[in-house]
Amino acid sequence: MTDYFTEEGSVETVNARMGDDIDPRLKTVMGALVKHLHAFAKEVELTQEEWDFGIDFLTQTGQICSPERQEFILLSDVLGFSMLVDAINNRRPAGATENTVFGPFHVANAPIRKMGDNICLDGKGESCLFTGRVIDIHGEPIKGACVDVWSDNAEGFYDVQQPDIQPKFNNRGRFITEADGAYSFVGIKPVSYPIPDDGPVGKMLGQLGRHPYRPAHMHFMVTAPGFRTIVTHTFVGDDRYLNDDSVFGVKETLVAPFEHVKAETEWRSPFDFVMVAE
Amino acid sequence: MTDYFTEEGSVETVNARMGDDIDPRLKTVMGALVKHLHAFAKEVELTQEEWDFGIDFLTQTGQICSPERQEFILLSDVLGFSMLVDAINNRRPAGATENTVFGPFHVANAPIRKMGDNICLDGKGESCLFTGRVIDIHGEPIKGACVDVWSDNAEGFYDVQQPDIQPKFNNRGRFITEADGAYSFVGIKPVSYPIPDDGPVGKMLGQLGRHPYRPAHMHFMVTAPGFRTIVTHTFVGDDRYLNDDSVFGVKETLVAPFEHVKAETEWRSPFDFVMVAE
Ligand SMILES: [Cu+2]
Ligand SMILES: [Fe+3]
Ligand SMILES: [Fe+3]
Repeated sequence: MTDYFTEEGSVETVNARMGDDIDPRLKTVMGALVKHLHAFAKEVELTQEEWDFGIDFLTQTGQICSPERQEFILLSDVLGFSMLVDAINNRRPAGATENTVFGPFHVANAPIRKMGDNICLDGKGESCLFTGRVIDIHGEPIKGACVDVWSDNAEGFYDVQQPDIQPKFNNRGRFITEADGAYSFVGIKPVSYPIPDDGPVGKMLGQLGRHPYRPAHMHFMVTAPGFRTIVTHTFVGDDRYLNDDSVFGVKETLVAPFEHVKAETEWRSPFDFVMVAE
Repeated sequence: MTDYFTEEGSVETVNARMGDDIDPRLKTVMGALVKHLHAFAKEVELTQEEWDFGIDFLTQTGQICSPERQEFILLSDVLGFSMLVDAINNRRPAGATENTVFGPFHVANAPIRKMGDNICLDGKGESCLFTGRVIDIHGEPIKGACVDVWSDNAEGFYDVQQPDIQPKFNNRGRFITEADGAYSFVGIKPVSYPIPDDGPVGKMLGQLGRHPYRPAHMHFMVTAPGFRTIVTHTFVGDDRYLNDDSVFGVKETLVAPFEHVKAETEWRSPFDFVMVAE
């Protein structure tokens, strides 16, 4: 009759405590969370000191969060958890452009610009022509797609990280496709940068023998009526961190050509976005 | 050659990133944590919205922590995680007194008192004589054992929760055994109380259809040279929350007699502590 706690029956005891008429999805998610958390503690026979350390780590992670900084997202990112949730929720047929992590540096409502415009406003870095088409899975061009792009500047910082130094909307813009689905704009060949590593997550990375760097990438969010949104990056293929992105964002199909053309721009990076209907 | 992230291989990719010469125990613990966290997300196919909710929940939990409040410990408690870690680390032979959660209200260095002294300093509540012996697993008395005790007052608050209302060290004390191993002191019959439920954890309990109450209990920490420390409570057997302690602290062997003697004290609660050699 009693369901007192035991080491063996811990999961059942805790989960049996949930009410009968609560949200069924909540019950499923919490039940699974308790099951896997307890399995973790049992597998490693977590010590009291390690538990203390974990409580302290989570507390520090919470306390460093601010309107400008989200250390729990960073934690999720470096554990591959953000990429996993993204993968689960964005399974697509072969040939469609794959998603990757959104990242914390997107700004809604960047200026809508004309095709071919230069989004680099601080004059730094090596210029690069980004060009391609937005098409559906059959290769048909998509008209009215919005290609929202953002990258760091040549020094590895996003404009929002340096509001007093960089022009507003530096290396950002939105481009709307015509009937041919084509897009083009001039930006810079992006550079690799470290995720913020002066907090508990950065310290953890150090203890795990990992570095905080992300390989150079250009962010894209592509939206079009009737199609599933693509949130992704393109990566520079010769980046030294390509095989060990600190947040695991790289996918083979997202490594884009960066051709050293030395023409009107120093570089040229062609890439097509293949969208899936909703 | 590449180990880019995939949904299937997510655990291996993340764990392969750890350095070769890091602390081996850290490698084991983090590897298992990543494995079980990813298994959780995969099992429930965690949505992006649920992930957002989780990040927000953890952030709120961290932000409400203060020197006076530890919401992550509370979270661990209500998920049965604290009891599980306690159980894993304090397995004892049959007949030995079992552990339970430490709780947040212990105060180190409470006054050492004489056997039979009254620890209730605010004059509230129904008096109770707590009495018994500290013995080893063979029934031999242990001399020089320290019986450190603490409870809430008759209104359900610990002295440290009401520093301006209750006398310092109200319902606390330490008692040192003589050669007979006996201890006795007068306190109150403890009353049930809710864990702090005005934060994110309390809100979660509500959504899970759970209440925040703990059944009435007296805290004990028993130490003696050469023996493993006992951290435990004794529980009042007729408490309405005995079968659904919000932190899962109750064990069958810890439900103590509370005899309504109406003698020098209103109640009497005999309980022996059986210690295991180190
Ligand atoms: Cu698991
Ligand atoms: Fe980025
Ligand atoms: Fe308590």
